[in-house]
Amino acid sequence: MNCIELKDISKSFGATQALRGVSLRFEENKIYGLLGRNGAGKSTLLNIIANRLFADTGQVSVNDLPAVENDKAQQMIYLMSEQTLYPEKMKIREVFKWTKNFYPDFDAAYAQNLAAQFGLDTKKRVNSLSTGYSSIFKIIIALSVNTPYVLLDEPVLGLDANHRDMFYRLLIEKYGNRPSTFIISTHLIEEVSGVIEDIVIIKNGEIIRNESCESLLSKGYTVSGKASQVDAFIEGKEVIGVDSLGGLKTAHIMGVPDRREIPEDLEVTKLDLQKLFIQLTNS
Amino acid sequence: MNCIELKDISKSFGATQALRGVSLRFEENKIYGLLGRNGAGKSTLLNIIANRLFADTGQVSVNDLPAVENDKAQQMIYLMSEQTLYPEKMKIREVFKWTKNFYPDFDAAYAQNLAAQFGLDTKKRVNSLSTGYSSIFKIIIALSVNTPYVLLDEPVLGLDANHRDMFYRLLIEKYGNRPSTFIISTHLIEEVSGVIEDIVIIKNGEIIRNESCESLLSKGYTVSGKASQVDAFIEGKEVIGVDSLGGLKTAHIMGVPDRREIPEDLEVTKLDLQKLFIQLTNS
Repeated sequence: MNCIELKDISKSFGATQALRGVSLRFEENKIYGLLGRNGAGKSTLLNIIANRLFADTGQVSVNDLPAVENDKAQQMIYLMSEQTLYPEKMKIREVFKWTKNFYPDFDAAYAQNLAAQFGLDTKKRVNSLSTGYSSIFKIIIALSVNTPYVLLDEPVLGLDANHRDMFYRLLIEKYGNRPSTFIISTHLIEEVSGVIEDIVIIKNGEIIRNESCESLLSKGYTVSGKASQVDAFIEGKEVIGVDSLGGLKTAHIMGVPDRREIPEDLEVTKLDLQKLFIQLTNS
Repeated sequence: MNCIELKDISKSFGATQALRGVSLRFEENKIYGLLGRNGAGKSTLLNIIANRLFADTGQVSVNDLPAVENDKAQQMIYLMSEQTLYPEKMKIREVFKWTKNFYPDFDAAYAQNLAAQFGLDTKKRVNSLSTGYSSIFKIIIALSVNTPYVLLDEPVLGLDANHRDMFYRLLIEKYGNRPSTFIISTHLIEEVSGVIEDIVIIKNGEIIRNESCESLLSKGYTVSGKASQVDAFIEGKEVIGVDSLGGLKTAHIMGVPDRREIPEDLEVTKLDLQKLFIQLTNS
């Protein structure tokens, strides 16, 4: 089956359990958001898929091939992460050539084109780039590599709003022209909500949500009004967060609101993805 | 007059002109957004105000006192930046004590309270913190220092959505309890748009906008529809950006839309702050 499949993956670092029995499937030709707080286990998960870390228990497969120490499986995966694995003194245009050796479908001409659009000078050395341009350099490779699975760990780190906007537009364009699976791990949740189809939320090393963005968004809503009315309304519902101010109360609820059931005095609003995420992952 | 005032500030680094004749006033008890692309000159401006860099030409004053090499002026200013100026092996709780020596109004009890809210262990050493917790540590000092002017350069770097949300709420709370001037430089423009009152936009070392957030937002709008109709409508208007797709066109315009003038077939929407910023600063 064409997918990345994780079965019962656990991983500890000393006394810290980073992943706890994670089972999960990333299907082909989909854009995923992998969301979680700092330290939730996102990077550990991506690094295990890409064979940069070994799980303590469990299996990972890529299109039914075991992923561990297996070139055939790993050639289908590209992981962009904060670590720069290229020789630091190498020039960017040399990295483009070098990438082609590992990933035969890498499109060097397209990478050059993207570099021009982002204003990245490919004669520069990898270690001379600012945080923003280091991200841009890696984004360009990720968009040009043409592997079936592209994993992006914090792709917009250090990018200004204009370059982030450009990245999202290029990603959608790329996906339209040549579909593949993109797994995006990011803290800029609201910005990416228009780009991703499916959402995986990880909390303390466990998957707490795994569904389409549309489905998740349809289930969260906020009710505000007099505290007594709000309290009466939320009884028996799945309340994920509450704010109080004087005699007023705001409650965030999981579920589909039934308009007929809601008193006229209460205000009902949709929860956007970032607010929903915050409520679901606050400790 | 109680304000930070810059008069005709210029600064070059080698052949690069970072600031070009910047004149500007930051008034007391206001929250400013200092917005600009990477490399626009934001950090240079903040560092000149805080006496960490010297301008080539021009003057800076703080409540009418010259700012350069003047302790009386600098004691009114706190700059939080990516650089960590504390001794790296110092423990956080020691930094809190030490800060009190420089800034007598620093509220150490409030800082401890914030550390508990953010989950920052104050027994840790400064150099042992992750990027996110390094930002949190500096945010806590900035919120507790009680100087009339607090300058924040990328305060939410590395923070997850939950901690960013907490920071914005604490900032508003602090401002409500004890007003002072906050100048926030950030790339997360849409998120901060609900927090800031006034906006200063810097582009290639020059101030291109300096007005209230409300006023700026009221002036930007987007018109979409058939290309021919959009073209006819935008003639003579201040167009800051255009996107085309097939026979359709979207134009971003500065100015206040006159509803009577707009053909029924055209759709008019508001520009949010981040989109407006992108259009104003794209090269």
